Amino acid sequence: MSRLPDIPDLAQRIRSGDRRALARAITLVESGRPDHRAAALDLLDALGTEKQALRIGLSGTPGVGKSTFIESFGLKLAQAGLRVAVLAVDPSSVRSGGSILGDKTRMDRLTRHPGAFIRPSPSQSLLGGVARRSREAVALCEAAGFDVVLVETVGVGQSETIVAQMTDLFVLLLAPAGGDELQGVKRGIMESADLILVNKADGDLLPAARRTCSDYAGALRLLRKRPQDPDGFPQAMTVSALEEDGLDGAWEAMQTLVAWRRDAGVWDETRAGQARYWFDEEVQAQLLEEIRRDPEIARAMTQAREAVASGRQRPAPAAAAVLQGFRDRHG
Amino acid sequence: MSRLPDIPDLAQRIRSGDRRALARAITLVESGRPDHRAAALDLLDALGTEKQALRIGLSGTPGVGKSTFIESFGLKLAQAGLRVAVLAVDPSSVRSGGSILGDKTRMDRLTRHPGAFIRPSPSQSLLGGVARRSREAVALCEAAGFDVVLVETVGVGQSETIVAQMTDLFVLLLAPAGGDELQGVKRGIMESADLILVNKADGDLLPAARRTCSDYAGALRLLRKRPQDPDGFPQAMTVSALEEDGLDGAWEAMQTLVAWRRDAGVWDETRAGQARYWFDEEVQAQLLEEIRRDPEIARAMTQAREAVASGRQRPAPAAAAVLQGFRDRHG
Repeated sequence: MSRLPDIPDLAQRIRSGDRRALARAITLVESGRPDHRAAALDLLDALGTEKQALRIGLSGTPGVGKSTFIESFGLKLAQAGLRVAVLAVDPSSVRSGGSILGDKTRMDRLTRHPGAFIRPSPSQSLLGGVARRSREAVALCEAAGFDVVLVETVGVGQSETIVAQMTDLFVLLLAPAGGDELQGVKRGIMESADLILVNKADGDLLPAARRTCSDYAGALRLLRKRPQDPDGFPQAMTVSALEEDGLDGAWEAMQTLVAWRRDAGVWDETRAGQARYWFDEEVQAQLLEEIRRDPEIARAMTQAREAVASGRQRPAPAAAAVLQGFRDRHG
Repeated sequence: MSRLPDIPDLAQRIRSGDRRALARAITLVESGRPDHRAAALDLLDALGTEKQALRIGLSGTPGVGKSTFIESFGLKLAQAGLRVAVLAVDPSSVRSGGSILGDKTRMDRLTRHPGAFIRPSPSQSLLGGVARRSREAVALCEAAGFDVVLVETVGVGQSETIVAQMTDLFVLLLAPAGGDELQGVKRGIMESADLILVNKADGDLLPAARRTCSDYAGALRLLRKRPQDPDGFPQAMTVSALEEDGLDGAWEAMQTLVAWRRDAGVWDETRAGQARYWFDEEVQAQLLEEIRRDPEIARAMTQAREAVASGRQRPAPAAAAVLQGFRDRHG
């Protein structure tokens, strides 16, 4: 995308539900080019912040059947008349083995549904950039009038934290585990889960799925009840994406949680808190971008970081020295 | 402390094990005064980074018997000839009901032991400041030649994350729980625990303690094994701080973990990673301090944050506007 789009026209087409326009807008917010960045901010500004979708974060390691689940669950919502967007947050395509959602053919029925929009993750990216881009892609989908935005992550590194900070509820998808595979959940993920779904509860795996489900239900009971949860949440349930079994129950559980949070005012509080969080993150990110724009300062930061890592310097004075160097050059 | 100390003299006295000098140095790093800050950095610089203590993070909600545990465990180490420093990280003295470790009389035997040093948490503080101060207090204790630095936190908000980022191993202290009290662990804490100790495993509570211990042992098995852990870790065990029972076993488990991590090179990697983390945090914190020093910018940030929270503005453009305002005033 070299030519800059006509922002009011693009905004209009996004609002009217033009999926190609939405795709182009997401490419715009994903771009690193300063002029694209400026255009992206103008576009977001033009689109406003009125429309809200239900943002669902979905995390699960490769092999739990995430694509099958998204296909079945997304189709169920789409067939119920809801417009569903699926985005992927993948901070480290390398580690997680290629862009997730990359193989859209694995969800071709959902892809072909007129009420659905699927956006694979960009091939490579840095965490900070991923957060901003994904957040803005979600905002674009909301402005485009989608009812549900499903944000998928493989839960590598901090990605589930990022996704939890930009979604209204967080679903952890698991596969049935045998005794040896019990240590399946990446630390940190269970913390943010509102709903744990043990997939593949079908055929031979059904007993293992039930056992895994009750194991995690037990573990969840050991965690303090969060103020934003009604009784019984976080919840663990079994589903079979393959046989489209338990998906209604999962959707009902999400609806229950959402209704409770809206009534309790937790929904708005949470979104406000997330917005404050992202504002502070943006201020810090933009400050860092600014000082890193100076290649000598960027080099100084890298050197200082390693001097600190090796114990030759302490964090505070090393940071102070780098910033002083910036002032001397730009004061 | 109005008069500034003679840094080389203070450093010398700290190295020689003068506890009053150490206490004064910690007051210095805790001070918000710019001249104190500068002196603190000079002092840390003068002390160097050669000596290393075993840094143990200890988290537990009020009522689990943290003071009793620190007294018994700390005494056991001190009586074994180890020099033990105890620091407290308490980001919100208000919420957690007063400065922790404030009542040193609850650990008077440890307080009176010549090999021990106990430092209550400052009465009030902001999280960012707490992190820096605590980190530097730990560094001072290491320079003072302590073998073990116990960093206590009540695990309010992010404090356990902060403590985990500045310690070599993290211990979670729990009390025996009945069926209704099961949801005892604040989310996030179990994630960082290397060792879960269920205290009060004595008298009538012994059966409940054993049950709680096996519950958490089960929950830990559901989490993926971390690369920095040998087999069997994280571990859950019962202790009785009151009857000084199980403390040897807990210390042995810590020694096993530390030995494994040193051999595997994980120890150095972890410390290097923590140092990089704190360097980046310092750069961001100092950048923010700088722009907040301008009261109008501080006001603009508060206003922008709330505009973003209410949905009137988006994070990125709001942050950009604030920073532009700073440039216009200081460019």
